[in-house]
Amino acid sequence: MRVEVINTGTELLLGSVVNTHLGTLAQALFSLGLRIERQVTVPDGESIREALIESLGRSEVVFVTGGLGPTTDDLTRDIAAELLGRSLHFHPEVMAGIEALFAARGLPMTDRVSRQAQVPEGARILPNHHGTAPGLYLECPPSPLTGGRVAHLFLLPGPPRELKPMLADAVMPILRELVPVGPRNECRLYHVLGVGESNVEALVGEALCAIPELELGYCARPGEVDIRCIGPKAALETAEAIILKALGDRIAARDGRPLPAVVVETLTQRGETLAIAESCTGGSLAGEVTNVPGASAVLRAGYVTYANEAKMRDLGVDAALIETHGAVSEPVAAAMALGALRRAGTDWALATTGIAGPGGGSEAKPVGTVFIALARKQKDSPELSVCVERHLFRRDRISFKRLVIQTALDRLRRSLES
Amino acid sequence: MRVEVINTGTELLLGSVVNTHLGTLAQALFSLGLRIERQVTVPDGESIREALIESLGRSEVVFVTGGLGPTTDDLTRDIAAELLGRSLHFHPEVMAGIEALFAARGLPMTDRVSRQAQVPEGARILPNHHGTAPGLYLECPPSPLTGGRVAHLFLLPGPPRELKPMLADAVMPILRELVPVGPRNECRLYHVLGVGESNVEALVGEALCAIPELELGYCARPGEVDIRCIGPKAALETAEAIILKALGDRIAARDGRPLPAVVVETLTQRGETLAIAESCTGGSLAGEVTNVPGASAVLRAGYVTYANEAKMRDLGVDAALIETHGAVSEPVAAAMALGALRRAGTDWALATTGIAGPGGGSEAKPVGTVFIALARKQKDSPELSVCVERHLFRRDRISFKRLVIQTALDRLRRSLES
Repeated sequence: MRVEVINTGTELLLGSVVNTHLGTLAQALFSLGLRIERQVTVPDGESIREALIESLGRSEVVFVTGGLGPTTDDLTRDIAAELLGRSLHFHPEVMAGIEALFAARGLPMTDRVSRQAQVPEGARILPNHHGTAPGLYLECPPSPLTGGRVAHLFLLPGPPRELKPMLADAVMPILRELVPVGPRNECRLYHVLGVGESNVEALVGEALCAIPELELGYCARPGEVDIRCIGPKAALETAEAIILKALGDRIAARDGRPLPAVVVETLTQRGETLAIAESCTGGSLAGEVTNVPGASAVLRAGYVTYANEAKMRDLGVDAALIETHGAVSEPVAAAMALGALRRAGTDWALATTGIAGPGGGSEAKPVGTVFIALARKQKDSPELSVCVERHLFRRDRISFKRLVIQTALDRLRRSLES
Repeated sequence: MRVEVINTGTELLLGSVVNTHLGTLAQALFSLGLRIERQVTVPDGESIREALIESLGRSEVVFVTGGLGPTTDDLTRDIAAELLGRSLHFHPEVMAGIEALFAARGLPMTDRVSRQAQVPEGARILPNHHGTAPGLYLECPPSPLTGGRVAHLFLLPGPPRELKPMLADAVMPILRELVPVGPRNECRLYHVLGVGESNVEALVGEALCAIPELELGYCARPGEVDIRCIGPKAALETAEAIILKALGDRIAARDGRPLPAVVVETLTQRGETLAIAESCTGGSLAGEVTNVPGASAVLRAGYVTYANEAKMRDLGVDAALIETHGAVSEPVAAAMALGALRRAGTDWALATTGIAGPGGGSEAKPVGTVFIALARKQKDSPELSVCVERHLFRRDRISFKRLVIQTALDRLRRSLES
């Protein structure tokens, strides 16, 4: 079954909102063995008409997101009904649900909301438990519009927090009935750190290309190359052996799990704890770790010590050390990690100090310079150890922070695995 | 000039990467008065052909991102050259640039890299200072392929850190010559917090719709509705007066600036400082603040105190308080904020304590419960004051954190403005 996605939303084409629906839909569909062949974004309003005609003429399954809301630029419902020759009628149960939601939120209701209770003839309602507009599923019999095939049209709400649960609770059960059960391909992702894209392909490309039924892809990201393998299980096992042999500990995660999750899970399994002391990453490193459910068992304390007084007061960094070497230096990074380790009484501590920019660089330490320290308590001994890495990430402020976070977590991961 | 964007990348259609190029391009183009009319995503490989034929047949300016890399699934360059009837030839200067980049990074070079030095006849090279594949600009004379018009085709690299500077340094100068200078529409965005989408439209919709030449849009986001106004300056001024009158202090930001930037700038102007104590947001609140350049002048210290011992040790929260009321409670939130304020000696302190889930809820305090405290030093007095808000955000873990961060920063913004 060929699948296409139409995202409506002028805000997407103006760049004020990022499209997260495509990823949400893609991951859910892949679990059923379905791939999205094409995705298109059109502005609010009339443009949805042309996009719907194109996609319905080409594909068996079409998703539309957005344009179901109460405002005047929400036309998805009306145009889909018109194209399919279905009349809209008022649906009292939908209206009751909308009224209940407004009551629960204590918000006054306006007349325009009732537009959302208009339902095309023959549509199945996909309940929306997180917003007012229900989703709609329309089975379209063969017609010139659908290229003579049966087509399945899903109209879903624009806000991600409404779309996500609706996809899981209402759309997936319908799709499971439509998609034949059988052996499905799986997808494995390998995040490779510190090796360029062409070198990754030089190391593993030829051997992987020789595996029958394996679909291979590469994606370069800041400081990282992803290898993507899709195929039946046996092909994936063969591929994994080749990748692990060639790239060894350069693989930060071998199952698509993000690095923070790998670190939290490994620490949890070992019953060990972590403290974090941040200067240049300013809380974002702890923030990434605490995005992982269960992080509270692992992360005992975090210190955001931008200011020098904070480094001294909260982490016990010696003023003379900062005076002599500067706040962005190897000794200060080491002292921050050791200070956090001692204060929080954890097994491990990570510390970052660097120059995120745009200001603050010098010739000896240009913008992008960072020191990352990892301190640990030795097993069965009161001794502490610390190691410091220096890196230069010449990037914008946000990318710099992201690279420092990734490098710091990978440093910890490698120590945990060795 | 009609503009379309084609993003290539199987990883986008598999949902393993989010498309940020659309936003980057949209914002840059809007500054020239250009709007993207349509965006399409196709997988790596042959699908780019059909998408290119469609877009070139419809639009004067077409951007393609991705598929310029060294690996075997990178076909953008070859297919574009073939469609336009141009031969590819080896470009020694491009090759020298690639070699220099590999040398600077200390990486060994492979044969496949030289594919990236193949340039279609007549193409202008857009230098890539952050990666190996140069961008390409092809001016296409009128032909059946271009619907008889002149078309401008830009082939840009996939990695965002390569595309962004290339867009600013090489693409925008070309576009500035192509786009006639004249009065341009502006875009203003208003982030409205705590009012539903249909109520926002009920409050301002009719009055705004009556303004000639004003293009109006709404976008609902978690806890927030964006009002988007596009038009000539006079129309925007009229609209702004209506919006501010009707929605007053519900407007978190009136110029599209993100809330953290508003807070950092206001504190900087006032010469005041901030400390942050985080339990449920786990560092992400400080992380958002420190994403803003210049945050170091404002944020003096941050404490991630997931663990109860950390709340006591680092913030001086009384053990009895936690014992009696629980770590997620109004008194503990207040004590955290006051503790951070005292310890860091700042003018303001924000504290968060809540249950992000998925585990940890109870009947009295279900998952999603959060207490947000704001403490401040009184002017010219040793007195400290603190206020605490209780909220319930029933969302997934990441959305919960985002809502808490937004609500906390907006709490501070309102206090700063009043």
